[in-house]
Amino acid sequence: MLGKLMDNVCEKKPLIHNITNYVTANDCANILLACKASPIMAEAEQEVEEVTSICDGLSINIGTLVENKIPAMLKAGKRANELGHPVVLDPVGAGVSEFRTKAAHELINQVHFDVIRGNLSEIRALVSGVGSSRGVDTDGQDEIVNDIGAIADFAGKVAGALDTIVVVSGATDIVADADRVYAVSNGHNMMSRVTGCGCMLSSITAAFLAANKEDKIEATLAAVCAMGVAGEMAHDRLTKEDGNATYRNYIIDAIYNMDGAKLEAMARYEVIK
Amino acid sequence: MLGKLMDNVCEKKPLIHNITNYVTANDCANILLACKASPIMAEAEQEVEEVTSICDGLSINIGTLVENKIPAMLKAGKRANELGHPVVLDPVGAGVSEFRTKAAHELINQVHFDVIRGNLSEIRALVSGVGSSRGVDTDGQDEIVNDIGAIADFAGKVAGALDTIVVVSGATDIVADADRVYAVSNGHNMMSRVTGCGCMLSSITAAFLAANKEDKIEATLAAVCAMGVAGEMAHDRLTKEDGNATYRNYIIDAIYNMDGAKLEAMARYEVIK
Amino acid sequence: MLGKLMDNVCEKKPLIHNITNYVTANDCANILLACKASPIMAEAEQEVEEVTSICDGLSINIGTLVENKIPAMLKAGKRANELGHPVVLDPVGAGVSEFRTKAAHELINQVHFDVIRGNLSEIRALVSGVGSSRGVDTDGQDEIVNDIGAIADFAGKVAGALDTIVVVSGATDIVADADRVYAVSNGHNMMSRVTGCGCMLSSITAAFLAANKEDKIEATLAAVCAMGVAGEMAHDRLTKEDGNATYRNYIIDAIYNMDGAKLEAMARYEVIK
Repeated sequence: MLGKLMDNVCEKKPLIHNITNYVTANDCANILLACKASPIMAEAEQEVEEVTSICDGLSINIGTLVENKIPAMLKAGKRANELGHPVVLDPVGAGVSEFRTKAAHELINQVHFDVIRGNLSEIRALVSGVGSSRGVDTDGQDEIVNDIGAIADFAGKVAGALDTIVVVSGATDIVADADRVYAVSNGHNMMSRVTGCGCMLSSITAAFLAANKEDKIEATLAAVCAMGVAGEMAHDRLTKEDGNATYRNYIIDAIYNMDGAKLEAMARYEVIK
Repeated sequence: MLGKLMDNVCEKKPLIHNITNYVTANDCANILLACKASPIMAEAEQEVEEVTSICDGLSINIGTLVENKIPAMLKAGKRANELGHPVVLDPVGAGVSEFRTKAAHELINQVHFDVIRGNLSEIRALVSGVGSSRGVDTDGQDEIVNDIGAIADFAGKVAGALDTIVVVSGATDIVADADRVYAVSNGHNMMSRVTGCGCMLSSITAAFLAANKEDKIEATLAAVCAMGVAGEMAHDRLTKEDGNATYRNYIIDAIYNMDGAKLEAMARYEVIK
Repeated sequence: MLGKLMDNVCEKKPLIHNITNYVTANDCANILLACKASPIMAEAEQEVEEVTSICDGLSINIGTLVENKIPAMLKAGKRANELGHPVVLDPVGAGVSEFRTKAAHELINQVHFDVIRGNLSEIRALVSGVGSSRGVDTDGQDEIVNDIGAIADFAGKVAGALDTIVVVSGATDIVADADRVYAVSNGHNMMSRVTGCGCMLSSITAAFLAANKEDKIEATLAAVCAMGVAGEMAHDRLTKEDGNATYRNYIIDAIYNMDGAKLEAMARYEVIK
């Protein structure tokens, strides 16, 4: 099933509008091109509604956020919602500062996100802390970091509370909506030494959703597995002199060379719920 | 002839002021260094006139444009004009939004560009649509996408109307001024899967112009051929596990290793007019 | 000794706050990850104090500076000073424009920097020119560019005047405080063809300082040697088809694969004073 969802990206070549950070924007653009999607980066408040209107999906990433980008994110998000385009949020650094956390809250309060992808602490910050009153109990969660069952349970609750699909990236990745939870064991721990693996995953998730609008959680699962498989394929190519810069390139290269059959053969996930 | 023009870049090592987007800025800087030119990226309105004054050429690129960069682009462009420095415009995304199109129009109305490089739809947006009254007839142009003769004719007309050299990037690249038109068949279609090939070409075009101020159209032709040759050389190195990220690096590497003799031997272009 | 200082970075994994330019931010993030440090890029005035508070060190880089980033740099720098976090300044382009030079002066007047790293002209601009009254005599310095003894003497004077450690990058790198001066001969001249080698060095210097707070000049020396050794290791891997893009990746890869023993074995420096 996942293979078909990936092949749909290559066939439909969705155009993805990215409002993102300047650290990993180049990698996000290239990994979208790697899976035959196309990127547009545009963040001027004056143009984001027009830009997103001609696209097939939207990825909003709050890395290197500055205040004047927030209205553009809100406008683009609302317009994409009106048009039924899938919208992904990467709440980079939510929880690190009141500014970043509030911005994330404002986004989830005003825009409906089909998928929210972050690490555990970022996802937590969406439902707790500054200005939050969403009622998902996050007490005692410091103990759950290594407890996949607990993370899965938490992710499902957040997904239900926010009416979205939640991806919690980690050693095991969790993909959850209110009803279903998948645990993905693809990937390699060296990916944590490459900046932007999370950002890149968020961008291609928007492409997978745009090409598979009727199967959102499966499309998200396919994107998460594809990124993990790319991390494995890329790691297999490394020589002992290679490090994280070459690894970054090989991860993008692996997506370039991956097709549905390859993904199908290498995806490793469990249905938890 | 083209070889000598490239060797002049390596010998004169022009310093190029770039006001550009954050997606491909790193690649633009590295490809300028690859051909022994040097990059300066500076976009504060307060400093662009001073910065451009110590440079040999200016490249303005409207990718990821935000409103407060426009005055800096105008100031830098006007100062470069006063000093006789070559100025290149890359109208990224012109036609995609009213904001981007208007900004491109404002730039071409207030700054004289020696070269404007874009894809067909970007070049079209310069002479049609919002706020345009330049009188180049663009009716019926939707039919010209695959007609090299028609694109060449169109490019020549735009070049005449805007008193510039127009480069229309595509499967075949067109280089035109009001009197002459060249068609370049160098390049590889995989270049369309690498973000920033156009931006990089615009940056090195400024370097080629700066090192060859008396031969502007030939210098532009040399830059276009060099980028295409780099795409071919880079493609020849790829293994079956490599993808677009490695390809990006190899394209820059190819410029690093290219000299005039290599360019001369591999350039493939026709004089159309 | 240098080896132990590098190993401390790998063991302590400092979190480094970067307020930096968009051209080389990705490389700075990846090279921090290469030495097992972690990067955070954050530049919103509203959050920089909070962000820097949870970090172990701060790197401020004024490439692609725009006016509204200056208050964020000042706030972050002052907060880091209060907390005793090491702070590094990379005065990219100081001397190129009044705006950039004044910004650098404002930073060094309001923030205490543990290390200031730049090329000779950038360091000069800190103590001369617009608005300067720091009293370091820079007359006649145009003659010192190739005179290591003179650069060393100059660097020591600037370090004393600004109560900091000064790194002057060049064919030979100088590391100086008021009392001591080291000359580092590691590195390769091809590094000048890779954008961001200086920026990357500034970022890892913050990491080396954060992991070695009691040995600041030695930690700075270790970072400078490590970057130079990486340039040598990376150059050894290049084939004749490789150029500066592959070289950039290999430099980061070399840091990824370097440990204290390797650094110890390959570092080449002299005590000048």
